Order: sequence, then C-alpha cells, then structure tokens
Amino acid sequence: MPKIAIIMGSKSDLETVKQTAEILENFKTSYEIKVLSAHRTPKELAAYVGTLENKGIKVVIAAAGGSAALAGVIASHTTLPVIGIPIETKSLKGLDSLLSTAQMPPGIPVACMSIGSWGAKNAAIFSLEILALEDKKIKAKLNAYKKQMAKAIKKIKVKI
Amino acid sequence: MPKIAIIMGSKSDLETVKQTAEILENFKTSYEIKVLSAHRTPKELAAYVGTLENKGIKVVIAAAGGSAALAGVIASHTTLPVIGIPIETKSLKGLDSLLSTAQMPPGIPVACMSIGSWGAKNAAIFSLEILALEDKKIKAKLNAYKKQMAKAIKKIKVKI
Amino acid sequence: MPKIAIIMGSKSDLETVKQTAEILENFKTSYEIKVLSAHRTPKELAAYVGTLENKGIKVVIAAAGGSAALAGVIASHTTLPVIGIPIETKSLKGLDSLLSTAQMPPGIPVACMSIGSWGAKNAAIFSLEILALEDKKIKAKLNAYKKQMAKAIKKIKVKI
Amino acid sequence: MPKIAIIMGSKSDLETVKQTAEILENFKTSYEIKVLSAHRTPKELAAYVGTLENKGIKVVIAAAGGSAALAGVIASHTTLPVIGIPIETKSLKGLDSLLSTAQMPPGIPVACMSIGSWGAKNAAIFSLEILALEDKKIKAKLNAYKKQMAKAIKKIKVKI
Amino acid sequence: MPKIAIIMGSKSDLETVKQTAEILENFKTSYEIKVLSAHRTPKELAAYVGTLENKGIKVVIAAAGGSAALAGVIASHTTLPVIGIPIETKSLKGLDSLLSTAQMPPGIPVACMSIGSWGAKNAAIFSLEILALEDKKIKAKLNAYKKQMAKAIKKIKVKI
Amino acid sequence: MPKIAIIMGSKSDLETVKQTAEILENFKTSYEIKVLSAHRTPKELAAYVGTLENKGIKVVIAAAGGSAALAGVIASHTTLPVIGIPIETKSLKGLDSLLSTAQMPPGIPVACMSIGSWGAKNAAIFSLEILALEDKKIKAKLNAYKKQMAKAIKKIKVKI
Amino acid sequence: MPKIAIIMGSKSDLETVKQTAEILENFKTSYEIKVLSAHRTPKELAAYVGTLENKGIKVVIAAAGGSAALAGVIASHTTLPVIGIPIETKSLKGLDSLLSTAQMPPGIPVACMSIGSWGAKNAAIFSLEILALEDKKIKAKLNAYKKQMAKAIKKIKVKI
Amino acid sequence: MPKIAIIMGSKSDLETVKQTAEILENFKTSYEIKVLSAHRTPKELAAYVGTLENKGIKVVIAAAGGSAALAGVIASHTTLPVIGIPIETKSLKGLDSLLSTAQMPPGIPVACMSIGSWGAKNAAIFSLEILALEDKKIKAKLNAYKKQMAKAIKKIKVKI
Repeated sequence: MPKIAIIMGSKSDLETVKQTAEILENFKTSYEIKVLSAHRTPKELAAYVGTLENKGIKVVIAAAGGSAALAGVIASHTTLPVIGIPIETKSLKGLDSLLSTAQMPPGIPVACMSIGSWGAKNAAIFSLEILALEDKKIKAKLNAYKKQMAKAIKKIKVKI
Repeated sequence: MPKIAIIMGSKSDLETVKQTAEILENFKTSYEIKVLSAHRTPKELAAYVGTLENKGIKVVIAAAGGSAALAGVIASHTTLPVIGIPIETKSLKGLDSLLSTAQMPPGIPVACMSIGSWGAKNAAIFSLEILALEDKKIKAKLNAYKKQMAKAIKKIKVKI
Repeated sequence: MPKIAIIMGSKSDLETVKQTAEILENFKTSYEIKVLSAHRTPKELAAYVGTLENKGIKVVIAAAGGSAALAGVIASHTTLPVIGIPIETKSLKGLDSLLSTAQMPPGIPVACMSIGSWGAKNAAIFSLEILALEDKKIKAKLNAYKKQMAKAIKKIKVKI
Repeated sequence: MPKIAIIMGSKSDLETVKQTAEILENFKTSYEIKVLSAHRTPKELAAYVGTLENKGIKVVIAAAGGSAALAGVIASHTTLPVIGIPIETKSLKGLDSLLSTAQMPPGIPVACMSIGSWGAKNAAIFSLEILALEDKKIKAKLNAYKKQMAKAIKKIKVKI
Repeated sequence: MPKIAIIMGSKSDLETVKQTAEILENFKTSYEIKVLSAHRTPKELAAYVGTLENKGIKVVIAAAGGSAALAGVIASHTTLPVIGIPIETKSLKGLDSLLSTAQMPPGIPVACMSIGSWGAKNAAIFSLEILALEDKKIKAKLNAYKKQMAKAIKKIKVKI
Repeated sequence: MPKIAIIMGSKSDLETVKQTAEILENFKTSYEIKVLSAHRTPKELAAYVGTLENKGIKVVIAAAGGSAALAGVIASHTTLPVIGIPIETKSLKGLDSLLSTAQMPPGIPVACMSIGSWGAKNAAIFSLEILALEDKKIKAKLNAYKKQMAKAIKKIKVKI
Repeated sequence: MPKIAIIMGSKSDLETVKQTAEILENFKTSYEIKVLSAHRTPKELAAYVGTLENKGIKVVIAAAGGSAALAGVIASHTTLPVIGIPIETKSLKGLDSLLSTAQMPPGIPVACMSIGSWGAKNAAIFSLEILALEDKKIKAKLNAYKKQMAKAIKKIKVKI
Repeated sequence: MPKIAIIMGSKSDLETVKQTAEILENFKTSYEIKVLSAHRTPKELAAYVGTLENKGIKVVIAAAGGSAALAGVIASHTTLPVIGIPIETKSLKGLDSLLSTAQMPPGIPVACMSIGSWGAKNAAIFSLEILALEDKKIKAKLNAYKKQMAKAIKKIKVKI
C-alpha cells in the first residue's frame, strides 16, 4: 500500500519527478504517481486528493512550474502534509515556480523544496523523514543514507 | 443583473479592490463582489464559479497576493474571461503575486493587470472594454473616459 | 472577416506568435496578422489601430520583447481589449518584457499573458473566451477544448 | 513533553516566531523554543540538535534571515523533518532569506515556508499536519481549523 | 528660446522632475516642461514631439514610471537625443521603470538615467553635456560644477 | 579626425562593440576604439580620457560587464557625454552590468543603453543623434535610416 | 598609526559607516576615515590610495551605494586587500550596490560584505581578522568577541 | 606548509575552484584543498576547520552553490579570514549562491567574491593580498601581476 502520492502538473515534469521516485524505490517505500493539473483537471485533482487519506497516503508531493498552483491547491483540499517541487521554467528559470510554491498564505502550508532536480530528490528525503517518525526501518535507512553521503564526500581526493 | 464578478482572496485585499468597484459604479455597470479563497475555500469557490455563466456574468475579476492562485483556479473552472489583479505583498512587494498571476500554463489564460491599485483600476476598464464589444453605451462612455483622461492631462500647467 | 488582429513588434517574434495563430485556426476563427513596431513604425501603428474597430476587429493581440511598449501603445489608441504577449529576451529572459507589458498605468489596461510560447497560446484562448461571450459555437468549442485538455491529462500513464 | 522545537537565529526574529508559538498553543501542542545561531553558536546548535530525538521532538522549526543557514545547518545534524521560516530582511525584504532557505542541495531537505509572518503561521500548521499523521486529536483539530477558516471567509460581507 | 524639453507622464512625477529643472535653472539654460502621457495622450505627445526640432529644442528629457513607454515613444517620433528618467514606483521600486526605459530595441535609443531623483539630476547634467559641445559657456559652467562637487567632498570632515 | 571614442573593458567585449562600430562606419562617421579597463588600467584610462576633448572627440561610448565601472569612471574624468553599453554576463545575464551602468549618483551621468547587442547598436545611433545636432549630413542620414527601418518593417509579409 | 582606511562615497553613508568605526574603536585599532568618491573625486581618490601603503595601512574599507564603483576603483590602484560595504539605496534597496560591489572582474578582487549596517559591522570584523594574522592581541580579542557573541545568545530566555 | 585552505561543497565545484588553485600555483603559494560540505559533512567540516590555525593556515577559501552555507559555517568556527566563492547554479545562475554568501549577519563576516570563475580567480588574488601584508615576495609578485594585466590590455590592438 503506497504511503506517498506524487502528483505532477504536466508530463514534461516527469524527467524531474523521476528523481523523487528513484529515491523512494531505493528506500523500498511504495508510492503512487499521477499527472493531474490544478489548472486543467481541477475536479479530478480535488477528487483524487479526497481519496488519499482513506487509502493510507501520509504525504503528498506536488511538482509544477510557472504559476505553480498545484501544491497549494492540493493543500487546500487536505490536511496531509504537502511538499512542493518548483519546476525549472524556460524563461524565468524557476523563480516564478519558487515564489508561487513558497509564498502560501497563512493557514494552508506547502513545504517548498529547491528548484528542479535538487528539489525532486529532497522531496523524497523529506517525505521519508516524516514517515521515519513512526517507521524505525526508514529511520535506520535515512541515518545510513546520511552517513553514506558523508562517507562519499570524505573519500573524494581532489587533484589539480 | 450583474455582468461582472469580483472575487478577492482575503478581506485585506478590499482596499485595493474597492478601486475596481468604484470605476464600475461610475460606469453604472452592475457587479457582484465576494471574498473567496483558492486555498481556504476551494469548494465554495468552485461552486460559486460554476454559477456565474447562468447568472449572466460575462467577466470575472480576481485579486490575490503572494502565491496568488485565485485567478488561475477560477480560470480552471470556467471559459469566461478571467482578469487577475496581483496584490502588493509586504515582503516581495507583489513580484510574487505578479509572477503567480501572469505565468499561467498554456490552455488556461489569465489576463494579468499591474500590481496593486493601478491593476485594480485597469481590471475595471478592461472588463468594460469587453462588455463594450456588445454594449454601445459602455463603448461611448469608455471613449468619453479616454478623452476625459487626455483632457485632464492637457489641462495641467506645470510651474517649477 | 477577421475578428482578431495580431501585431508583432519584430519579425523575430513570429516563431512565438505562430502558436497564437495556430490555435485560432484550429478554432476556425479568422484573424489578421501584421508586423508593426511601437518604436520603429509609430505612425503606421496608430493608423492601423485606428482602422480596427470599423473592420469589425474585436480583440487585439500584441507581442513584443524588451522595453515592450507595443501592447500599451496600441491600448493608447483604442478601447478594444488589448492582450500582450511578453516575448522572451536573450539577456533578461523576458522579465523586462513582462514588467513592461504588465505594469500599465491606470486607465489604459493591457491583459498580460505569460512569457513566450505559453503566453502566445493563452492569448489565442483568452481572445476566444471574449468572442465566445457572443458566439455560441466558439463557446462550445472552448468547452470541448477544455474537456479535451483534461482528458489528455487523464490518459497519461506514468511509469518510472 | 514537547513535540516541536522552535529555533530562531536572533532575538529580533521573536516577533515573527511568536506567531508560530501562538498557533501551537491554540492547538495545545507543547513545544520548546530557543535562540541559537548557525553562525554565532554553531557548537551549541549542533549539541542542542543532537538531543532532540531522544527528548521525543518530532519536528524542528527554524527561523532566520539574510544568509539564512540555520534551517540547513540543523538539517545537517538530524534526520528529523526541518521546517524553515525565511525572516523578512531590511534591505532585500526576505528574498535573500527565501533563497538561502529553499535552495538546499540534494540529500539535506528543508521545508521552506513563506517569508515572515505568513511563514511563521504555516510552520505551525505544517508541523501539526505531520504530528496529526499519528495523533487523531490534532487531526480533528486541524480539520476543524480548516473548516473554521472557510467559515470565517464565507461570513465576510463586503460593502463598497 | 528653450533648448531642452522636459516631458513627464503624470503630474505625480513632478516632485522628481523638479530636480531636473532646478539644475537647468542654475545653469541658466532655458527649458520647457509638459505633462504628456504615451498612454493617455498619444496624439498630443506625437504632435508635440513633432514641433520640437523647429522650435530649436536640442534634447528631450522624459520621466515615467511602471511600464514606462514615454521616452521610447518620444524616441520613435524624433531623431533628437532622448533621455529617460525611470520614476520610482510604489510596488517594484522602479525596477519596472528602469527595465522599460533601458531595454530599447536596436535603432531607437533612449539614454537611461538612474531611478528617481538621482536620475532627474543626471538628466539635467547629461543634457547640458550635450549642449556644451557647442556652447563654451555651458562647458565652462559644467567644468566648474564638477570642480565644485569635488571641492564640496574634499571639505567634508568626518568625526565619529 | 574621429568624433567618437569607443572604449571596451575587455577584449571579449569586442563581439558586442563591433556592432557599434559597424553602424558608425555605415554613417561614415570616424571613431577610435580602445581596450582599456577601469579596474586593470585605471591610469591609462584616465590619461586617455584626458586627451579626448583636445582631439575633438564629442562622445565617449563605454562597454563593460559585471561590476561595470568603466562608463562611470570615464564620466568622472570628463564632461563629454558618456554612453554605457552593459555587456551580457555569463551568470546574471547582464542584470549586474545594467544596474552598475545605470544607477549613477547625481552629478556624474552615464547614458545607459540596453544590454548587449541591442545596446551596442543604440550607442552608435544615440551618439549620431548628438553629432547630428550640429551636422546636417548626419541628421539627414539618421532621418533616412529611421525611414528605412519603418519601410523594412512595412515590407514584411507574414504567412503562417 | 592607523592600520585601516575607511573611505565612503558620500556623506550620507556615514550613518552606516559609523558602525564600522565603532567596532574598530572597541578593538582599540586605529583607523582613518575619509569621504572620497570614485565618480566625483577620482584624482583625489587615486592620490589618497597611492599614499596608503607607505603610511602603514593594511586594509581598505570602502562604502558606496547604487553604481558602487568605489571599492573596485580603490582596488584598481592598490594590492592592499579592499573590503566593500554595499550601501542600501532608496529604490533598489542595495541590490544595485551589492551587484556592483561583488561582481568584480578577474584580477581585481573586492571582498563584498552584506548590504548596509550588517556589512558595516562585518567590514570591521573582517579587517580585524586580517590584522589578527600578525597581531596576537587582536586575535585574542576576536576570539573573546566571538565567545561573547555566543554567550550573549545563550543567555537569552524566550518567553511567549 | 600550506598557507591557504580551499574547501568546496561538492565535487562538481572543482571545475570552478581549479582556477583558484592555478593562480596560487603560479604564485608558488602552497595550499591544501578539500571537498567538505556544510550540509553533508558538518562534523568533519567543523573538525577540519578546527585544525587550520595550528597548521599555519592564514586564509580559508570556500566555494558553494545554491543555499551556499559553506563559507558562513566555516566562519562560524574560526576567526581566520574566510573568502566565499558563489558557484553558478543551474536554475538561478548563482543569484541564490551570491545572496547566501554575501548576506552574512553581523559578527561573522564572509568576504564574498563574484559568481563563478571570476570569483574563483579573485579568491586567489585576494588571499594573496592578505599574505602579501607580511610577505614581500608575494607583494612583489602581486604588483608585477597587476602591471602584467595592464600591459596585456595595452598591447591589444582592435580592428573592426
């Protein structure tokens, strides 16, 4: 049974969002993934978000670019934690996506990650940190992952 | 019967939106005005937008600040023309509102006006320009308004 | 008889503006298209805009980049609704075009769309939304287009 | 026993952070609050973060402005979920704080909220959404809070 | 007979533009000053600009804010040198005015000064530098002004 | 005898500045061109600027990128009109160059053009507009150039 | 004999620069302070900078706003370390000063501090860190200062 | 024995940082170089920084991108002068890195260089300027380097 729902606003976001999914798979955490748009499929989005809690979903991850309303609209329909990935855009390079995702009004929070692939990876880790609060296996894996990251850095030998 | 619906995301936007209403009143064009939030009242917003066409509303004006999803979400629920007023925000001064309102994905347009009170006034004029396409009285008033603006400028005598 | 006039400030804007025209053609809505510059052909522009209402044009779409005065100057010459497409620029990526197009002073509105090809498409849809207020065929097509967009999204199956 | 730790980088951030605490108190959720700086008390900060898990803390909220390293540095020391509040700054109005808080490298996520008091309130709500995953009372209160927000908006009567 | 024409887009720009006029008066250089808007009085503006060369005007100074088309539109109607003063705006603080004034397309130059009162003063000095190419009295005064500025700075004694 | 001095801060600016020179050559206006840096050759720059007036130079054009002090430093050494071309930079795309060139303090004006090749061309035209105040041949050519630009635009036939 | 030279571009910068001087006085490190402008007193500035090394000055601190050439121009005249304080400006809030100060071309470094009073204080501390490399008393005081900062933070008791 | 420590936050920063090292090698100044991350190896970073003074390191250079906490965190652990190189990022092009590096709070200075390779080179030169205060050979080489830069510029002959 999936614990995490990943929603992207457009199929073109898949290249970015794939990096979220890959980390979740490495952590053997099941997820479900959908293309649903705040602007093009508002009803389907609302309906889908309405099913998440009963299905046992704990965290929702939303990726969108430009006037990136997706994460905020999801948050308007649920009290599950919603994480936003601002997609890099062609013209403004994701500054528009970042401000649209981060600058939520009081009462309806969205957890904004970094722009693009950094944010896609961090959305996975952050949702695992939430799940780890009640799942000791994920906690152990996260701690191991963190040590592994440090180890990988310490092994680097730089030669000019 | 109102031709124009004005929706604002928060009561604090009223100071700005009042300037839209005042122009509509000067043009004797009826409107209705609501506080409804894309993030705090998504269902009520969708329901309300669903009623607009049958009521004879021709144009929707939406004012919101920060992660300003309001105009875009309204546009997701209707094929009526939607005009967005980006509200000036405390920290980023409306740059966030402007990008959130303007950078809509293809297929779901929002007509973005200028930030703050300039935009509030222009939302009124722009919606009147739409109505004027089929209403000769409004057309005549708009043309008179335009002449009056020019006249007012020409009358100014500057002395240093 | 064309209902929509599309004006671009430079031939290099054609690649973007073509996407406006293609949607209008898909909607079988006639349009006329011109290259006229606020800065290089101000008289021809003013003269041309002066002919639009008598010809039955309902909406004007203007595309320009950098110090993008085109849409605003057109709006200074008419009370027809004017839609602006901010063209992506080489250095500032369209931020200059967006601010020049959106930040119009009170009294002379321009409906600013998103930067570049997103905005080009939305200029078409937004002008169709205006025409649809009095044209039931366009209204029906817009509603069908909106359903088709939603359907296209719902059909996407994502596999990681 | 506190479930949430709130850390601010400077005493001047208290005015903002108080709004986080007030919401937690309304939800009768215990928290502890500290002034600790990534730049001025790095050791004390690391030591304090090291104690959080054993004390039963589930979520860390960090508020800082300018080169806002606080949330990221906390996240470097723990796999607990870390929420960042970008404090509004005098010169750049919080744009610096927002980019410093949001643009975290892959592997070390920070959940960035909006700038200033909006973000302070949302940090409280977001942390409650996390706690609510395992606490039905908080869940019920969050749902009631959300309904109350909607109700408050629906009650507003606007008069021009 | 005036050598310099100063045009401002709105009466509210007078506070800034007054600083241009004061310097010209100190240099005993005659000027004329008008309120004319690219957006609200396009015809009057074009007509007025058309008279400038015959009247012996050598330089045009234009002050406008927001989507600041004024200087560019003047430049479209004349081959006299046009200097633009970007007026500070309420929301974006003149960034919009600066980009609109500076980012002119090739062929139609505008000499953009700094935002606000710095730019108003520099528009005066820059136009005097142009006049000084053929007027030895102005040249001498400019050189004296420059020395005076340096002298004023050298006289400052700083005490902490 | 050259009337215009073109100074660039680095050899890499030549690709941009060449476009200034080409227009001056088309106008058969002689110029001299130098690589001199405000930061790397301050003395040579000051010495060179000191020779310009006696040589009969009327206008100085300066191209520089990043912390683009060149035009301002030249202006500090002369009361000749100084035109600045902000060079597009790798990271900030010329926003840094634009602000450094435009935001001059009162008393020492620089005429800032657009970023990159647009600005390079406009620097040529603007300096010709200054020379044309006393040179009827250049005036005639400028007017012809302006007509030619308009003609070139009017000849464009757009086909979708 | 002063070890540090503080130069400000305008008397209005004194309010900010005073905070640099106060810290140096607390550290009993002698300094000299001047108002000299890259744009208004270029010769005096060059001459003054030329005297610094012989006088035993080790570090130069420069404060300027807008097109903030001061620090860069000083760096062009010396191989002493030059520290820049970007002064907060009225319109762009110091973003212009920051980019002008930081974005120096290769070969002529400026050590850019934060905008405004934060930067003024840090310019003092940073120059003391340089002096401390050869002055054990300053080193000891800096270490004590650092401990004192940490202690001051640890003493803060926050009560909501 | 190395006098300078270079720390980069990620191996991908090496391409930039190599340019720092190359200049130091040209100046025959020994340095040591490490990959250590403020976010991924906070303990190793703190430990390493703790060893620097005893090893005789005089200056620390830190390169990082995005939420670039590295230089600031190093500065939190030492009173050695710390120089920050903001790495150019994929989406925001280093604006995020620049603000994170420059906008340090009072008491903990970081000397921010320009973004990317310009900054990498300047970090080397600036650290050499510090060492040159007590090392006449480096001083002589810096002066020669400065002359060589000027000479290289003066030799350039530009031909259009």
